[in-house]
Amino acid sequence: MSTTAARRERQRAQLIDAAERAIAEKGLAGLKARELAQEVGCALGAIYNLVQDMDELILRVGSRTLARLDAALSAAAPQAPSTPDQATDVLVAVALGYCAFARDNLQLWRVLFEHRMAEGATVPEWAVTEQMTMFRHILQPLGVLMPDPDEPERILMSRTLFSAVHGVVAIGLEEKLIAVPRRELDHQVEKLVRLVCRGLSKTVAA
Amino acid sequence: MSTTAARRERQRAQLIDAAERAIAEKGLAGLKARELAQEVGCALGAIYNLVQDMDELILRVGSRTLARLDAALSAAAPQAPSTPDQATDVLVAVALGYCAFARDNLQLWRVLFEHRMAEGATVPEWAVTEQMTMFRHILQPLGVLMPDPDEPERILMSRTLFSAVHGVVAIGLEEKLIAVPRRELDHQVEKLVRLVCRGLSKTVAA
Repeated sequence: MSTTAARRERQRAQLIDAAERAIAEKGLAGLKARELAQEVGCALGAIYNLVQDMDELILRVGSRTLARLDAALSAAAPQAPSTPDQATDVLVAVALGYCAFARDNLQLWRVLFEHRMAEGATVPEWAVTEQMTMFRHILQPLGVLMPDPDEPERILMSRTLFSAVHGVVAIGLEEKLIAVPRRELDHQVEKLVRLVCRGLSKTVAA
Repeated sequence: MSTTAARRERQRAQLIDAAERAIAEKGLAGLKARELAQEVGCALGAIYNLVQDMDELILRVGSRTLARLDAALSAAAPQAPSTPDQATDVLVAVALGYCAFARDNLQLWRVLFEHRMAEGATVPEWAVTEQMTMFRHILQPLGVLMPDPDEPERILMSRTLFSAVHGVVAIGLEEKLIAVPRRELDHQVEKLVRLVCRGLSKTVAA
């Protein structure tokens, strides 16, 4: 790599570092281009030599968040299940891992859902792939509980189960009046996943 | 009522009407005190003779949204269930009614969740009561599926089930990449509720 290219790469990493710290502290509202430029030590306009626009910068931070979430979920359920009971335990572990990650990375995790691309812009292919890859943590155990080879049905169920767990976690961590109280959150997330799995295995048995 | 009091009540209703229209069109971002004052035909400061602050105004609009949601859910499941199968059907009907209401009242429904009280302010008692009352649509049928007299457990489950359905609906209506596709939304909401109910009745049977 030429010195210029190496310097650019280093600055780019510093910019993403600075954006990550700003979001972790104050969420998307904490992300100010002027402050980032100051922290990286470049002119305001020079930021756009490092990333295309603020959307890309936010997606690059999101990419790091997803990579850490991915590692956390892999650690939560290191063994591939082979029986329905094991699959249920894996899905519970993944859901609890998700809940713990969200709690420990509240602002960075929120941004994964709050961020909307600028009008007319679409999410770039690399970011789509990263998001979709995460579903393997659900799809693999779900395959044991839904051995029927209907792949589209299993994909739909993985999204439904994810959205359901996400709903309980998101409303719970907001501590809304109508939320599951925070001290009960893990227990209720586990209960929800066990009930759905029990429902699924009952369908298989019937 | 004195003429002054009647006039004040009329203006107050007009103010809430105007706020409701603004939110329905553009969400919370569409709510501008100056434009509301103009529409009602009063001075900017006079708004605060009609409501205490913007929080109260938003809660008053929310109160109307909740009242319409309440009516929609009552219409969705007019009969009180007495068997587990009927209770499941009622919970499915309530969840689908919730999904339809959210779709048809997208901005007003979002505000029920997005609105946060100003720093240090708490949600007033009347608004808390209105929110909590909504849970009877879930608690009553859940009582048939969880006949065990453990009331706190049933209350927790009603919140969990609500948050789960809300998660699927909210991510689905945002049309996020990771969402259940919109055309599948009703079907997946129904599936989720049936699986949870099947899981619950299996628990009872076991």
